[in-house]
Amino acid sequence: MELPRDVLRAVEQALVEDRADHDATSLALVPAARRARGRIVARADGVLSGCDYAAAAFVACDAAVELEWLAEEGARVRDGQEILRCHGTARGLLAAERTALNFLQQLSGVASATAEMVAAVGREVTVLDTRKTVPGLRHGQKRAVVSGGGVNHRRDLEDQLLLKENHFALSGMDYAEAVRHAKAASGGRIVGVEADTEEQAVQALEMGADYVLLDNFALAELPAVAGRLRARFPRAVLEVSGGIRLASAAGLRGCGVDRVSVGWLTHSAPALDLAFYLEPAA
Amino acid sequence: MELPRDVLRAVEQALVEDRADHDATSLALVPAARRARGRIVARADGVLSGCDYAAAAFVACDAAVELEWLAEEGARVRDGQEILRCHGTARGLLAAERTALNFLQQLSGVASATAEMVAAVGREVTVLDTRKTVPGLRHGQKRAVVSGGGVNHRRDLEDQLLLKENHFALSGMDYAEAVRHAKAASGGRIVGVEADTEEQAVQALEMGADYVLLDNFALAELPAVAGRLRARFPRAVLEVSGGIRLASAAGLRGCGVDRVSVGWLTHSAPALDLAFYLEPAA
Amino acid sequence: MELPRDVLRAVEQALVEDRADHDATSLALVPAARRARGRIVARADGVLSGCDYAAAAFVACDAAVELEWLAEEGARVRDGQEILRCHGTARGLLAAERTALNFLQQLSGVASATAEMVAAVGREVTVLDTRKTVPGLRHGQKRAVVSGGGVNHRRDLEDQLLLKENHFALSGMDYAEAVRHAKAASGGRIVGVEADTEEQAVQALEMGADYVLLDNFALAELPAVAGRLRARFPRAVLEVSGGIRLASAAGLRGCGVDRVSVGWLTHSAPALDLAFYLEPAA
Amino acid sequence: MELPRDVLRAVEQALVEDRADHDATSLALVPAARRARGRIVARADGVLSGCDYAAAAFVACDAAVELEWLAEEGARVRDGQEILRCHGTARGLLAAERTALNFLQQLSGVASATAEMVAAVGREVTVLDTRKTVPGLRHGQKRAVVSGGGVNHRRDLEDQLLLKENHFALSGMDYAEAVRHAKAASGGRIVGVEADTEEQAVQALEMGADYVLLDNFALAELPAVAGRLRARFPRAVLEVSGGIRLASAAGLRGCGVDRVSVGWLTHSAPALDLAFYLEPAA
Amino acid sequence: MELPRDVLRAVEQALVEDRADHDATSLALVPAARRARGRIVARADGVLSGCDYAAAAFVACDAAVELEWLAEEGARVRDGQEILRCHGTARGLLAAERTALNFLQQLSGVASATAEMVAAVGREVTVLDTRKTVPGLRHGQKRAVVSGGGVNHRRDLEDQLLLKENHFALSGMDYAEAVRHAKAASGGRIVGVEADTEEQAVQALEMGADYVLLDNFALAELPAVAGRLRARFPRAVLEVSGGIRLASAAGLRGCGVDRVSVGWLTHSAPALDLAFYLEPAA
Amino acid sequence: MELPRDVLRAVEQALVEDRADHDATSLALVPAARRARGRIVARADGVLSGCDYAAAAFVACDAAVELEWLAEEGARVRDGQEILRCHGTARGLLAAERTALNFLQQLSGVASATAEMVAAVGREVTVLDTRKTVPGLRHGQKRAVVSGGGVNHRRDLEDQLLLKENHFALSGMDYAEAVRHAKAASGGRIVGVEADTEEQAVQALEMGADYVLLDNFALAELPAVAGRLRARFPRAVLEVSGGIRLASAAGLRGCGVDRVSVGWLTHSAPALDLAFYLEPAA
Repeated sequence: MELPRDVLRAVEQALVEDRADHDATSLALVPAARRARGRIVARADGVLSGCDYAAAAFVACDAAVELEWLAEEGARVRDGQEILRCHGTARGLLAAERTALNFLQQLSGVASATAEMVAAVGREVTVLDTRKTVPGLRHGQKRAVVSGGGVNHRRDLEDQLLLKENHFALSGMDYAEAVRHAKAASGGRIVGVEADTEEQAVQALEMGADYVLLDNFALAELPAVAGRLRARFPRAVLEVSGGIRLASAAGLRGCGVDRVSVGWLTHSAPALDLAFYLEPAA
Repeated sequence: MELPRDVLRAVEQALVEDRADHDATSLALVPAARRARGRIVARADGVLSGCDYAAAAFVACDAAVELEWLAEEGARVRDGQEILRCHGTARGLLAAERTALNFLQQLSGVASATAEMVAAVGREVTVLDTRKTVPGLRHGQKRAVVSGGGVNHRRDLEDQLLLKENHFALSGMDYAEAVRHAKAASGGRIVGVEADTEEQAVQALEMGADYVLLDNFALAELPAVAGRLRARFPRAVLEVSGGIRLASAAGLRGCGVDRVSVGWLTHSAPALDLAFYLEPAA
Repeated sequence: MELPRDVLRAVEQALVEDRADHDATSLALVPAARRARGRIVARADGVLSGCDYAAAAFVACDAAVELEWLAEEGARVRDGQEILRCHGTARGLLAAERTALNFLQQLSGVASATAEMVAAVGREVTVLDTRKTVPGLRHGQKRAVVSGGGVNHRRDLEDQLLLKENHFALSGMDYAEAVRHAKAASGGRIVGVEADTEEQAVQALEMGADYVLLDNFALAELPAVAGRLRARFPRAVLEVSGGIRLASAAGLRGCGVDRVSVGWLTHSAPALDLAFYLEPAA
Repeated sequence: MELPRDVLRAVEQALVEDRADHDATSLALVPAARRARGRIVARADGVLSGCDYAAAAFVACDAAVELEWLAEEGARVRDGQEILRCHGTARGLLAAERTALNFLQQLSGVASATAEMVAAVGREVTVLDTRKTVPGLRHGQKRAVVSGGGVNHRRDLEDQLLLKENHFALSGMDYAEAVRHAKAASGGRIVGVEADTEEQAVQALEMGADYVLLDNFALAELPAVAGRLRARFPRAVLEVSGGIRLASAAGLRGCGVDRVSVGWLTHSAPALDLAFYLEPAA
Repeated sequence: MELPRDVLRAVEQALVEDRADHDATSLALVPAARRARGRIVARADGVLSGCDYAAAAFVACDAAVELEWLAEEGARVRDGQEILRCHGTARGLLAAERTALNFLQQLSGVASATAEMVAAVGREVTVLDTRKTVPGLRHGQKRAVVSGGGVNHRRDLEDQLLLKENHFALSGMDYAEAVRHAKAASGGRIVGVEADTEEQAVQALEMGADYVLLDNFALAELPAVAGRLRARFPRAVLEVSGGIRLASAAGLRGCGVDRVSVGWLTHSAPALDLAFYLEPAA
Repeated sequence: MELPRDVLRAVEQALVEDRADHDATSLALVPAARRARGRIVARADGVLSGCDYAAAAFVACDAAVELEWLAEEGARVRDGQEILRCHGTARGLLAAERTALNFLQQLSGVASATAEMVAAVGREVTVLDTRKTVPGLRHGQKRAVVSGGGVNHRRDLEDQLLLKENHFALSGMDYAEAVRHAKAASGGRIVGVEADTEEQAVQALEMGADYVLLDNFALAELPAVAGRLRARFPRAVLEVSGGIRLASAAGLRGCGVDRVSVGWLTHSAPALDLAFYLEPAA
């Protein structure tokens, strides 16, 4: 497994943050020559993500470590299931342990939450992430969303346009004019437009919006609104957003929307519980 | 407010990750000369943390931005309460918005969770964090724990020793010998020791452990165990850990332990909900 | 003018490369307190680009420098036309001079070449850049292309898919299958496809390619091929590439293609000639 | 071949700029286990430079890649000549391709232009570069000049002094005094001096200038001027500069000057045309 | 030997500072394929420190270098004793030589000075370092102190509190109040307190200071003062500081203090003299 | 005073190393709004160097700090003399104190040692530094040598050639051939040559060495050797090196050599003693 350089850099930074090369406990107690075997085991059901981050942590602390992955990026894991077996220097495994787990648990938490959301909304609705990511982990979190069955929304402020209320307020143009202007100035980028009313959604689509973000429409209204929009714009892409949690997600089934963007997948998903066991080895 | 350089660096990195200098939407729609006023408003009750990160994001996108904080680091905020008023270039505020909120929501989530835990365990028990932090955010998260009323455990692998099961297994020494050895080799650092049984706790304290981490003792046993340990070691510091969530936290009251370390404060606390409103300004 | 952080970083790196803080000539001859006025003047006709890089160089060497731009990003300039007046410390202006000019000449060279190409192909054909950029200057060069009247192709390997001969060869799939597969696995990204024959172009468009890159078609063939493709796929986007220089560019007029991507805009455009004049000032 | 760390760093930066670890096209189409053979072939005559940059790009994307160079740094290559054969993971070769070629084409362009200039001016005149380099590539470009048969002028503002018109204007000293002063304050560094007239050249050499840069002298005058200067200062080093292109370079033969410094070698040389072919391999 | 990443980073920086990849002398004289054997030999008695830095320098210049250490971190070495044998490319060994020696001599100088100080004060008094370290080398110097038989004081401004005269002056509190306040606000960190008089020492210990730093007490007074303090506070830790050089160090024996902190160990210890010999090898 | 970016970077790194933004003592005791005045005072005679490093430390911790320098780079200072007055936030001054002093004391130590050596060898002999510098501080130390009245030798491995015994041994050429070869391959750089015998010195000068480094010649021999060399090579530059300390330096007077290079100026000079006093201010 070749490790991407943003993964390597994030892991380097985390190891420095943890002063992993200067583990006072290991230096005091564990002989330099001692070798060990370790195992990462799931303590809950979920979807695995971040294996490359964990691998990078172990390799960074012991360049000759042997890693045997028993589950891979995106795999569903069960409570008690073994995920990784590793063999290397005892000090290296101890130094890497916390950093490896911190990445793996965080990212698997995102993947697991995404998988639950995907199951809740059903096949017809695509689950998207947002830019509400943990600073420094955007790439890892967005990959975790894919591993959990979701799809990535725009990567950053540069690669797509998304017109929201604040942009309309600050543009000094009326709604339709702003959409047309954005489309013309987009340089070929995708242009999404937030709509607060059906009328705005119509204007946005007329002006060539690549997708419409229906914001804060009541779930009960959505089927009728979506139906009318599709009748007029058969190729329209309809997205909903805002406050949809797991409990309410099933309500999106049959609403006629194409996709839902969900902030909490990346800003509030709880970590997946994982344990790390070590024992002396030859 | 002078901003610490680790805050500045983390914010720089997050702005680069978001390509905040190249916001395609603003560049298409918002004139460069336009100015705006913004407000951050709480949409839930909680404890505020990360103001310096948010400030750094705004300053980085508009060096002349004016920031008026209506609540400060560690303040309790209520749903609907205004937290920050800002005034600057419209493009600068839009570029900084997401990065500022991502930090502020993440860290306020940690502070809010800590405050709930502190309230649950009551006055006699100190709530501590762990090294189970989001990679890259350890310093901010540990400060958030303090803002929420908690206390910081060790900062990294270098500044204290903490002997856990894995260390004993790999040290090649018996329990008491390992503790004595660690104490002697600690170079004056604090030495904590995990104990799975009362007998181990006694050995650890006899060998000079600065605190004992009682791991996985049943809540029901704790008062008796703690009582006997204190009878013998009046100055002993007793910590518990492992699987204590908000719901079970009240069970620690009156158990006779000094402190509890809680991983989920930093790895699984949900973000605090905050909104950002913008309007044109002179 | 707020300076983007990638501009600042590139300029920092260039100043370090030039050891601009340790200009042995200035330190030997120019008193620290001396002030000067400088002027940048065009010595050829062209299109200006890179003003922010030049500004960053001057500001980095004299934080209080005064800059008065007489032409802005994207402006056409004439031989002899004054572009910038600056006033600051003599040492600061001397230290920044070469770095400022190196960026400004390189990027204005790209913008000027693009403008010539745009004029040559006429209104109906869009001029696009490629990823054949000078390492480290991609963002600046792509902006220069826009300043010269061109449009940016994909920014990097991640934000769009572009299937070329090498990908087909290595995919282990036949042409149509590969396009369909790529479209399905694109996660919503734009998918461009290179076609060596009209038949491939048809397959690509049938499989949903967002645009087709007609590679090495004879100019004489293009009108008929483009006509037949448009008859069948009215919304098809047709791009040509490969070996089109200024001299042959006019041949693209009336060919029925939408756009042309041109590598030499960024890898081989000559620098625009600019001079810098300095004189003592109060 | 050990790769210098500035080469590695420049290549790292270029790969990050291209998001080479996240090649959406390869990830969608090319299996991770597929291996490939690649060949770089010249499509024009020229001089090769930048092999270490290209090697670094391939190694960075596939640590186990096998590289067989059929031509080395500084070699003359012919249209159609094979330059490199490589064997590695298909994804790695695809990820590195553009970055490797961007460096190799840019730097070979500089070497090729230098070789043409060297041939034009003949044996007696040394061809020197300038500080008019592409920001971030100075070291690579200066090596390319050497590979093309040229010699490097000063590396940066610190390692030598070069007194030009702007320095005289800002020094507040007269010409001869400034040269003497610079020589005294040079700390043993080489001191070059620009001269606009023969009289200045005489003064500069009298004051100990290590070389004189004859600026904008008519080619027709040079033999006589150089003759008189040499008669008086037999060890004088005479350099010319300013506006000498390939077409006029032959005019320097027999002029009696030692060397010519040429800005366009590094700021305006066109890239050398190279192609990269890939095929599946075992 | 796994090399800590701060060691690697410091060595990288030093090699860049020395332009070690571009050794003009080696490139001119030593064929790329030549191999060599080198030896580092002590030219004075002392204690060795910094082996990992030296190793990192050699490995960075020749990844396949073979290193055979004949003495290890913390070993006493004698004038003439061989310390390291290495075998690798001639160019690599020459490039690394100066950087390896600069680290090894500097850090061995610190270790050697510490060992002399430890011998001078005798067993009962612990020799501590300070934060008066060479910028950028703190970690290496503090390890050298340990290698020389000393113990590390606080690592930085964050991990412990140390109240000195300036803090009292700026706190706006009286002495005892400030100590109590610091202890309460320390978040569990160690709190040291400087005392200029015995009365202050008493107050500091009453308020819970973890150690007292007796500043500028006459050596002759110390036994009596220390005796009275211990009578009252049997567990008190007493430290002295300020102006104690090797010559006066023996005066600390029998004074009743626990430890002495010594700035010159890290800011003024002379380098240990070492030589590097090279010869051609197969 | 504009601060060079290598100074700023070195200071940044040192402040991070000291965790200066997180000074636990100040945070516990000193109110954020408190302001203070500080003074740096010499506690020994010497020559000042590193003022820009100290300034950078104070500015980095309090951007609005006021600094009044009472002595400047290169000034002789006396025990008790005030060097700097500063006024700023109490926390900022406390955070910067140690870093500012660490640089200023180290570099002033180098300048002071150089000044002593310069006085010892007298006017006719130039005192040069070497590459035996503290890693990371080369530029600052070399400037300190100049401030103390010395002159800088080569800056790094790239900017000059210096042929020593190891190079001869590894070149595979005889002595004279190696010198001629190096001179030819130097690309115009200065070429110094070490000579162990008078015969080698003659060969080196015959082959065009820019200076000869007479290594380990007995002081008593030097006048005769130097006399003979000068008789034959009137423009020869003669340097001595190796083991010359302050005590023996006067022996170089009248020996006929031009310069002496001295390693201990940068690797073993003791820090200059400086004190920092703080008091509350309005």
